[in-house]
Amino acid sequence: MSVSRGVVFAGVFVVAGASAAFADPQTAAQLRDRALTDPTAYSVLESLTTQIGPRPVGTPAAHRAADWGVAKLKALGFKNVHVEAFAKPSWHRDAESAEVIAPFPQPLAVIGLGESVSTPPDGVEAQIVVLDNLNQMKSAAPDAFKGKIVVMNQPMTRSESGMGYGVAVAARSGESEAAKHGAIAYLTRSISTGTGRAPHTGATNYKDGAPKIPAGALGVPDADLLAHMAARGPVRIHLKLLSHVDPDTQGYTVSGDIVGSAKPDEIIVIGGHLDSWDPGTGAIDDGAGIAITTAAAHLIGALPHHPRRTIRVVMWGSEETEGSGAAYLAAHKDELSKFVLASESDFGSDRIYALTLPKGAFADPELAALPGVLAPIKVMADPRPATNAGSDVEEIQGAGVPVFSLAQDGMRYFDYHHSADDTLAIVDPEQLKQNVAAWAATLYMLANSDIDFRASAAAK
Amino acid sequence: MSVSRGVVFAGVFVVAGASAAFADPQTAAQLRDRALTDPTAYSVLESLTTQIGPRPVGTPAAHRAADWGVAKLKALGFKNVHVEAFAKPSWHRDAESAEVIAPFPQPLAVIGLGESVSTPPDGVEAQIVVLDNLNQMKSAAPDAFKGKIVVMNQPMTRSESGMGYGVAVAARSGESEAAKHGAIAYLTRSISTGTGRAPHTGATNYKDGAPKIPAGALGVPDADLLAHMAARGPVRIHLKLLSHVDPDTQGYTVSGDIVGSAKPDEIIVIGGHLDSWDPGTGAIDDGAGIAITTAAAHLIGALPHHPRRTIRVVMWGSEETEGSGAAYLAAHKDELSKFVLASESDFGSDRIYALTLPKGAFADPELAALPGVLAPIKVMADPRPATNAGSDVEEIQGAGVPVFSLAQDGMRYFDYHHSADDTLAIVDPEQLKQNVAAWAATLYMLANSDIDFRASAAAK
Repeated sequence: MSVSRGVVFAGVFVVAGASAAFADPQTAAQLRDRALTDPTAYSVLESLTTQIGPRPVGTPAAHRAADWGVAKLKALGFKNVHVEAFAKPSWHRDAESAEVIAPFPQPLAVIGLGESVSTPPDGVEAQIVVLDNLNQMKSAAPDAFKGKIVVMNQPMTRSESGMGYGVAVAARSGESEAAKHGAIAYLTRSISTGTGRAPHTGATNYKDGAPKIPAGALGVPDADLLAHMAARGPVRIHLKLLSHVDPDTQGYTVSGDIVGSAKPDEIIVIGGHLDSWDPGTGAIDDGAGIAITTAAAHLIGALPHHPRRTIRVVMWGSEETEGSGAAYLAAHKDELSKFVLASESDFGSDRIYALTLPKGAFADPELAALPGVLAPIKVMADPRPATNAGSDVEEIQGAGVPVFSLAQDGMRYFDYHHSADDTLAIVDPEQLKQNVAAWAATLYMLANSDIDFRASAAAK
Repeated sequence: MSVSRGVVFAGVFVVAGASAAFADPQTAAQLRDRALTDPTAYSVLESLTTQIGPRPVGTPAAHRAADWGVAKLKALGFKNVHVEAFAKPSWHRDAESAEVIAPFPQPLAVIGLGESVSTPPDGVEAQIVVLDNLNQMKSAAPDAFKGKIVVMNQPMTRSESGMGYGVAVAARSGESEAAKHGAIAYLTRSISTGTGRAPHTGATNYKDGAPKIPAGALGVPDADLLAHMAARGPVRIHLKLLSHVDPDTQGYTVSGDIVGSAKPDEIIVIGGHLDSWDPGTGAIDDGAGIAITTAAAHLIGALPHHPRRTIRVVMWGSEETEGSGAAYLAAHKDELSKFVLASESDFGSDRIYALTLPKGAFADPELAALPGVLAPIKVMADPRPATNAGSDVEEIQGAGVPVFSLAQDGMRYFDYHHSADDTLAIVDPEQLKQNVAAWAATLYMLANSDIDFRASAAAK
């Protein structure tokens, strides 16, 4: 994507009224333009994927990632840089394989789902039942899948907002329903919009009241392959999904501040998550979020005058299997009132197309110039109130912290997400910079304002 | 791609002169239009990838593929259907792995190159040398890579014609040059235009005069990753590439005819190759070629009147590691004079954009209407003489058989070629049908003509 610089808009800012005294859209526009040529985000992302690589919680790499985060934030001028450790049992993948035994022997691409129980060490061999959607499973007879392996071949819809994920991801936790009907294992088509064979992992959630059976994901082509085979008659496969849980591990969340010049105790909490799945190098999920928010805050920190409020970059340590959002809430319960706003960047590295704010905030004179600052980089001011701002801020949001969100183009995100193909090779450096530009300009104006977003939302 | 039907052109054919008595472009146009809605090619491809899957020479799957080919050709009405076996030692992949040991431990995606020798059973561990192109290796000092593993990170250029492959593929046989300079193993960046992590295999060729060292391919992101690491200082990796050779295996080439109505002993030899590499299911390389040529010949065979000459579909049994073209020449030496033309479809399943014929053939009145038949499906008559028509017909071409070629769009072919991502999921059924349309119309007119292509080429 090519990004226009839009300096032609600079002239409009001088007409801002007295009530927007602190807004300073001129500096926001300068930050935006500086971001479009700033190499920091790509450099941070290259460093994380190269020097750490995959970093699931509970691995040595996750520990090294925390050290990396501390060093990176310090080097980029952040203050109060520290690690917040929390207890987090961790799931670890061991040997995995799958293959068709009969009638058409061939190997299958498979990956275990996070939190899955293991098959026996030698695996299981059974006939498969291929279903097209979750509904077919729910309406099946009680013993419909007795002794069989359920293959859920429910496809996912591509969409800019990523809403297809919300619909499709239920299939990643279908094993309990399958088990209720007698299944001995469960394989879902990867929750993916792509055509690549690399299977997409992700955490599964066992439901109460059903036996825990092993659960994995097939490559998209492999799920279709089994459907094609099953259309011809009975198919037997062999499946091995081994894993273990380490109950005594810790997650590590890294934090650093660009300290506010006037109201340092009013804090805007942003960031990404530092943990990743294992098959790729965690470039778009969520090295990009780390890189974008770090680079944006760093650009603001490098200004001669910091904005009035503090900007805090948090690298949450256990998003993929949950835990870091709740740990963050627990650790910061007593200072929640200081958190004036929160958001997370956790949807890859492609262009931002919209900003949402807490209800009523766009109407505040202090932010009147913000849409004009964002328009040249093709970011809309979305008038709907922000509702969703990332998994790691859900808990503090639930405890009353207002959120904002910069919506990214998700058209290709789920081609790669949670698979081996999530690497630096799929990151477009120009779109990454546009992300930083949108974050830097937005953050600067939010941090410079005196808006009480809790009150703003409540007043309307 | 959407394909226009172009029936508006039908009117022009009635003006064809007396010398084009047999050309019958009306029927060619009907074949073209029928092909655009005919499901045969996709059905053949679905069947091959589903019921056989990967089928390297020397495997049980290759044997089953030959049985499949015989059954498929018979079911589609071909005559003289038979298997031609030939001796072909075969290379087989065993355990393979690679990982960075220091300073940034993480796993790497690697695949052995066909014909590579093995590492020791436990692999090798050594420092890497990352090079950007083959030239850097040739100009290196004699001991420049002593005890090291050479990583060749030479990228490949995307192009419609696929010409980037001809330039890039030399890196897949760089191990002998590396060994001359003391290297103990060699890893090339996958010969790929994609960003996927799945590594691309392919046969390598050891050169005389150098020790044989193990050779593999890294995923594209992995080659870049090692380059990024090496830019920071020394990097050590562990590499295991195990394989074995079975000297006593056979290749199986399948053949079937649509027998000519007037001159059955004048034969047009076409086809694809039945063998494939192992990581994918061999959908575009070369199930598609099998499917396209079989479906096109089948459509012609289903006409009430066959064209004058015989159309022979050959499913060559060992293209990937060579052998089936030479075996075909050896087995058919005595009937080469019957082969009036030859061609192979072996470049995926995307749209055809040009037809090339032997020198002078487009000027023959019998083919005057052919460009008009192909124009509605956006296939150009390329005036340059055909030079290259597929690996399996190179040997008979060398022995004097004229060739023709239907050029396919290769823009995305090398994103998938020889990797796990070569599956049915990447095949566009509409473009596949356009291929069949171009082949059916072209074949029909060539097979109906009396043109002596040897003489035609010699006369100009």
